[in-house]
Amino acid sequence: MKTHPRIYLDNAATTPLDPEVAAVMKEVMDRCFGNPSSTHAFGREARTLVERARKTMAELMGCSPGEICFTSGGTEADNMILRTVVRAGQVRKIITSPLEHHAVLHTVEELHEKDGVEVVFLPTDTEGRPDLNFLEKELHHDGNRTLVSLMHANNEIGTMINLAEVGYLARQHGAHFHSDTVQTVGHYSLTFKDLPLDFAAASAHKFHGPKGVGFAYLRGGKACGPLITGGAQERNLRAGTENVYGIVGMAKALELALSARADHENHIRSLKNRALEKIRENIPEAEFNGDISEDSLYTVLNVLLPEFPDPDMLLFRLDIEGLAVSGGSACSSGSHKGSHVIRALGKSSQRPSVRLSFSRMNTMEEVDCAVDILARVVHNAPQPHFS
Amino acid sequence: MKTHPRIYLDNAATTPLDPEVAAVMKEVMDRCFGNPSSTHAFGREARTLVERARKTMAELMGCSPGEICFTSGGTEADNMILRTVVRAGQVRKIITSPLEHHAVLHTVEELHEKDGVEVVFLPTDTEGRPDLNFLEKELHHDGNRTLVSLMHANNEIGTMINLAEVGYLARQHGAHFHSDTVQTVGHYSLTFKDLPLDFAAASAHKFHGPKGVGFAYLRGGKACGPLITGGAQERNLRAGTENVYGIVGMAKALELALSARADHENHIRSLKNRALEKIRENIPEAEFNGDISEDSLYTVLNVLLPEFPDPDMLLFRLDIEGLAVSGGSACSSGSHKGSHVIRALGKSSQRPSVRLSFSRMNTMEEVDCAVDILARVVHNAPQPHFS
Repeated sequence: MKTHPRIYLDNAATTPLDPEVAAVMKEVMDRCFGNPSSTHAFGREARTLVERARKTMAELMGCSPGEICFTSGGTEADNMILRTVVRAGQVRKIITSPLEHHAVLHTVEELHEKDGVEVVFLPTDTEGRPDLNFLEKELHHDGNRTLVSLMHANNEIGTMINLAEVGYLARQHGAHFHSDTVQTVGHYSLTFKDLPLDFAAASAHKFHGPKGVGFAYLRGGKACGPLITGGAQERNLRAGTENVYGIVGMAKALELALSARADHENHIRSLKNRALEKIRENIPEAEFNGDISEDSLYTVLNVLLPEFPDPDMLLFRLDIEGLAVSGGSACSSGSHKGSHVIRALGKSSQRPSVRLSFSRMNTMEEVDCAVDILARVVHNAPQPHFS
Repeated sequence: MKTHPRIYLDNAATTPLDPEVAAVMKEVMDRCFGNPSSTHAFGREARTLVERARKTMAELMGCSPGEICFTSGGTEADNMILRTVVRAGQVRKIITSPLEHHAVLHTVEELHEKDGVEVVFLPTDTEGRPDLNFLEKELHHDGNRTLVSLMHANNEIGTMINLAEVGYLARQHGAHFHSDTVQTVGHYSLTFKDLPLDFAAASAHKFHGPKGVGFAYLRGGKACGPLITGGAQERNLRAGTENVYGIVGMAKALELALSARADHENHIRSLKNRALEKIRENIPEAEFNGDISEDSLYTVLNVLLPEFPDPDMLLFRLDIEGLAVSGGSACSSGSHKGSHVIRALGKSSQRPSVRLSFSRMNTMEEVDCAVDILARVVHNAPQPHFS
C-alpha cells in the first residue's frame, strides 16, 4: 500500500495541539507539581497558575473570573449545567432541539426519564435552524422554571443560532438560557457579559488546546451546585484536584486563538469557500447539509454525496487515500449508528454525508487535494487493493 | 528573608510528576492529536494509545480492561460509582464512615438529602478503624440493596481497613462493596480479581502520574450507567473526549510505581520510621493520630503536636522554614474548616495536627531536616520576621 501525505479535515472532532500550547504545558509539567488546594509554597505556585489562567480566560471571554468554572471538558460542562439546574429545582421544563450534541441530548433525555423534566423539542427548518416562533409561543405559554438549551453552532452541519436573539426571547419570558458553545469559543468573538446568556459550555481541544479540560460559563457565578461533589475546589462547584497543566494549556490556547482570530477566520473561510466551489465543480451531483451561507460556522462544511455502493466503506476508502474527514459527529462515530443530525434533517439515508472541518493549520493545497480525493472516490469506486 | 531548600512532605495531597511519565506525555502531545472516537488513521492512533494504556493498567491491577473506566480523577470516580448505583435503584442504603474523604462523604450526604438514601455511619475506634461488628449487625439486619463504602487507607491518618475482610462481610450479606483506593493504588499490591470488591476509585497524581485523570474499577464491567452522559466513550460509561496524554501518563506512572514497588515501600517505610523516632526524641510531648503500626499506610504519619499559641500560624511558620506539610486533607485546607477526620477522632482542638506524607522521591536527609524544623517551630515560636 502506497503511503500518502495525510490530510486532516476533521477539526470539529478535535484540533491539533498548538506547539506553543504544548510548550507552556511542558513547562508546568517540569516545574510545578503542587496541589492548588495546599496552602504551602508548592500549592500556592499551582494555585497562582490556575487563577492566572482563569483571569486570562475571563478577560478574553468578557466575563469575571468567578464566572468561569473549569471542568474536564465540554461534555462535563453541559452535564453540570443541565443536571444541577434541574436538581436545584430551578427548572422543570427544557426547550431544546433534536440537533443538539449528544452531551445535551442524552442528558436531557435522562432528566426527562429519571427526573420527570418536561422536554420540548423545537421543530427545525431544512437547514437545521430551530423554529423561534415556536420557541416564543412555548415560552409565552409557560416560561417559568424553563431552560432553553440551544447550541451556538451545530458541530455537524455548521448551522448557527443568534445568541442575542434567542437569549432575549428567553429573558423576556423569565427563562434561563444555556448554549453549548463548544464549536465557537476560540473561533468567534464572544463577550459573555454583553450576551443574554446564563450558561455556556466549551472544550479546549476544539481550539488547539489540550484534551481533558474545558469550562462552564456561569453568569454571575450563580451555579446551582456541583455535579461532582467532594473537596471545595472551584468555589465548591467542582470537586477534584485541578488539571493544572490542562488549565494553563487551555488559557494559552484561547489567547493564541483570539489574538489573531480575524486572520484565522479569513483564512479558514477561504478554505471553506474553495472546498465549496471545487466540490460544486468536481462533484456536481453533491448537495450540502445545513446552512452554507456566510452566517454558518466557518469551520464546517457538510456534503451530501451521490449514492455510493457501500456507504459504510466511504470513510474507510477516503482514509486509505489519506483524507481524514468525518461521517458526522466523531463523538458518536464509534457507535456506528449514523448521524442523528442528518437523520433529523430528513435527508435520504441512501446517500452518504461527509463533514469537512477546517482549522487555521490547514492549507489551500490540502483542500484542493482533499476534494480531488473525494471526487475520485465518489466517482469511481473500485474496491481497495491490499498488497 | 533567607531562602531555604524546600522539603516536600505532602505526598498524600499530590506527588511530583515522574520525569519518565512527563516524557511519554510530551511525546503524545507532540505526535498524536486525534480524537479516539474518529474512525480515520488519526483517530485510530489515539484509540490505540488509550486502549494500550487500559490493557497495561488492567494487567497491573489484576482485572480485565473492560473493568477499567477512565475518569478525570478519583473524585469523579467516587461520584460516578456512588451516584449511579443509587440512580439505577440498586442501592437504597449506604454504610460508610465519618472519616471518609469528602469525595465520598459529601456525595453520600447529598444522596441522603436529595435521593432519600439511608446512610449509616459506622462508629470508629480511637485510631479511626470502623467497627466491623457494627457493620456485620447492620448487614445482618438488612444487607439487601446496600452499599458499603469504606476507604482502603485514610488519607489523613493512614489507618487502613482489610479489603478482604470487609468485602467478604458485604458479599456474605448480598451487599455491594466500594472502596476509595486513592491512597493505595500504585503503593500496594492490589489484585482486583482476587478481592471481594465491586468498585474502587483511584487518581493518577497520587502515584507520580498527571493531575486530571483517574479511573473507576467496575467489577465485571457492570456499571450502573454514566455520571456524565453524551457520546459513547468508555463503552457508554463516561461521555467526553478522552484525555489521551493523561491516560497514557497514568498507565506509565502505574507501571513505574509497581515495577519497583517493594523497593519503594521499603524506602518509604524507613523514612516514616525515622520520622516517628526522631519526633519521639525531639518533640516528646507529641502524640500520633491514627494507626502508626506496620499495618498503617506507609506513606502517611499524622502528628498531634503540643499546644501552640496560634495554631493557624503553624503551617505558615513551617512553610517559611521551607517545610511543606499539611494540616489535614489538602482537599479541604482551602476552606479553613480544619480536618473532619481529626475532629471525628475526638482529639483536642487546642492542639494542632500536622500530616507528614512521604514518597519514593524523598530522602532520609529531608526527613531529618523536616523534624528539626518541626521541633524548632513547635518549641520556640517567635513571630516570623519579615525584612
